[in-house]
Amino acid sequence: MRNEPARLRFEIVARDGDARAGILHTPHGTIETPCFVPLATRGSVKGLLPDEVSEMGYEMVLGNTYHLMLAPGGERIAEFGGLHEFMGWDRPIITDSGGFQVFSLAHGSVADEVKGRRGRPPLEGGVLSIGEEGVRFRSYVDGSEQFLSPERSMEVQGQIGSDIALAFDECTPFHADRDYTARSTERTHRWLDRCLAWHADHGPAGQAVFGIVQGGTHEDLRRESSDAIASAGVDGIAIGGTLGKDKEQMREVVGMTVGMLPVEAPKHLLGIGEADDLVEGVAIGLDSFDCAVPTRLGRHGMALAPLPERRFRYDVRKSRNREETGPLVVGCPCVACTRHSRGYVHYLSKSEELTGVRLLTIHNLTYTRELMRGARAAIVTGGYGAYRDAILAGAPPWEAAD
Amino acid sequence: MRNEPARLRFEIVARDGDARAGILHTPHGTIETPCFVPLATRGSVKGLLPDEVSEMGYEMVLGNTYHLMLAPGGERIAEFGGLHEFMGWDRPIITDSGGFQVFSLAHGSVADEVKGRRGRPPLEGGVLSIGEEGVRFRSYVDGSEQFLSPERSMEVQGQIGSDIALAFDECTPFHADRDYTARSTERTHRWLDRCLAWHADHGPAGQAVFGIVQGGTHEDLRRESSDAIASAGVDGIAIGGTLGKDKEQMREVVGMTVGMLPVEAPKHLLGIGEADDLVEGVAIGLDSFDCAVPTRLGRHGMALAPLPERRFRYDVRKSRNREETGPLVVGCPCVACTRHSRGYVHYLSKSEELTGVRLLTIHNLTYTRELMRGARAAIVTGGYGAYRDAILAGAPPWEAAD
Repeated sequence: MRNEPARLRFEIVARDGDARAGILHTPHGTIETPCFVPLATRGSVKGLLPDEVSEMGYEMVLGNTYHLMLAPGGERIAEFGGLHEFMGWDRPIITDSGGFQVFSLAHGSVADEVKGRRGRPPLEGGVLSIGEEGVRFRSYVDGSEQFLSPERSMEVQGQIGSDIALAFDECTPFHADRDYTARSTERTHRWLDRCLAWHADHGPAGQAVFGIVQGGTHEDLRRESSDAIASAGVDGIAIGGTLGKDKEQMREVVGMTVGMLPVEAPKHLLGIGEADDLVEGVAIGLDSFDCAVPTRLGRHGMALAPLPERRFRYDVRKSRNREETGPLVVGCPCVACTRHSRGYVHYLSKSEELTGVRLLTIHNLTYTRELMRGARAAIVTGGYGAYRDAILAGAPPWEAAD
Repeated sequence: MRNEPARLRFEIVARDGDARAGILHTPHGTIETPCFVPLATRGSVKGLLPDEVSEMGYEMVLGNTYHLMLAPGGERIAEFGGLHEFMGWDRPIITDSGGFQVFSLAHGSVADEVKGRRGRPPLEGGVLSIGEEGVRFRSYVDGSEQFLSPERSMEVQGQIGSDIALAFDECTPFHADRDYTARSTERTHRWLDRCLAWHADHGPAGQAVFGIVQGGTHEDLRRESSDAIASAGVDGIAIGGTLGKDKEQMREVVGMTVGMLPVEAPKHLLGIGEADDLVEGVAIGLDSFDCAVPTRLGRHGMALAPLPERRFRYDVRKSRNREETGPLVVGCPCVACTRHSRGYVHYLSKSEELTGVRLLTIHNLTYTRELMRGARAAIVTGGYGAYRDAILAGAPPWEAAD
């Protein structure tokens, strides 16, 4: 039981160009930024225990409102004392709003877009209706009809008891036309007002609310959205929505949007987590990032590595790794690299052994942690530009700082 | 690099009736008996890292020659310096001979029998031929033709470098008639001689060899086999083969067989690991046990518990566990029970989250470790009969000793 804990406060402790090192103060402790936030979609970082996540140096995880509301449900989580208690994680938690997932059901996912695929057809029994009030959809868990709206999203995030809640938004797809995007973005702003109004009356003490900037790839819509979110009285700002057809456009849209936002606000980039995107994002002043990449790649036999020409990853299951007695990545401090060979992880991954998934998940999260830790250290010492260049040129994080 | 390490030595340090507490001395350290041996079928205890297994109190794991010879192959493991090096486990390893698996391909598994099913039809492309020389079969990994014989099994186990190797045997199925069983058992004895001859010339220094008593459910065949194995110059004795149609007959066959064997020999019971079987097995003088039960049940949402009327387990995924804020088993010292609720594990298991598998695996192995630790302590203090009765009556291991 917390007694009126302090709401979120963001302190910038060092700057290097637009990059900054900060401290986010939340009811469950502080988070050093820039930081990466691992996904605990269904109340666990897949395959890891909470202590293992914090021992790796992570200070915050992200829970998905969409998944958690369908099972076990916000009410059940509240009965258990909130998500911190339920999952045994006593550090900060950020929750998304569920908007991304329900609109992905309707529009196809951002991943489809980045990969050049157009929106998938809606899943059978997925979204039933989208309107001003909210979204009706069918639960993938039990087929029941569900409703998600600004108020309902905030209610569930209140039951979850996250330290940072995200406002309910429509994640407009890349293939939406300008008119749809404009109307959708305006609705997202009205939804933000409803979120904040509900939260002011019913939100748990100490829970911060971040608004989400939408506007697709259109400069004027991004500006409108940036202004609307910044003036709405939020505790921080997330950048969401379609970020373009490829990485280049993504960086352009994100860079443009960050420039429209108040410098002092904490800024989170949703769903982006590849090494080059992280160091570029930090360079323009983003403070936090969440992404499925490190954990999901681990479940698919992929190891993060200082390989810019190969999207900073390689497939451990390839036969060339079979006889390798060295580690996944030379110099990496994780248990997979210090205690085991690449050939062993290759064998476990090929054999679909759970321990292989675990070793790769630990490696990928350790690698990403090192990347962000190095970024912060470089900002503090004023060497961030060199650090970024070294990472992009293929230096491992623990050497890039030298 | 080991300099002519001492071969296996078994020291009995306390007795209570037929039960005994002992110490197995191996080239990679000692093992306190009676003990349970978790499976590391493909070079990992599924989902766990080696340190986690040893921190749970386990001193030995079992590797499967059949799986390891097909991938990554004995040669590859030898190139990595043996299985201890390959999997990062520096404590004792026991390997089975591969016989159980190749004959299961032909006959159906013991599990099928215990569950009352008759032998499954041979897997497509499974066993190609069974003869005096050995068994030809097709690899499930790549379809290649493989050959397993006494010499080949010992060769692979030599490459693996286990502390204890098992002789190559035919695991005769329950539905085999007396004649088949008699002929098969005699061949198993000839195969043991071939194993020992090969091992004397080529086996790694320090590796012990256990013979396996066969003979089905027939008293005279079990006696013949017991005499043959005991007089063959083995370092220890495993009890294998069909143990009957149900638990009652299994205990009868095992009890009868143990009585035919030299008291001072270390005795391993293959493939048996339920709580009642473990405490009954210890009572008649068995020293070690291996079984997939604790780890496999964990992967299927089952938690071990002091529930004799329900085979010492329950299904965590049942909806009655949904709201349970207490632990899986009250008093259990594992991280799943001390840090998490049953409702959380229920949710993770229902959601097929890897962390759920991990928590249940840790719980089940901790529970089994507690059971065996309690058994040993009770033997040492002369209270084993009461301990066994308490376990069979439903006391948890940490209370049964009181």
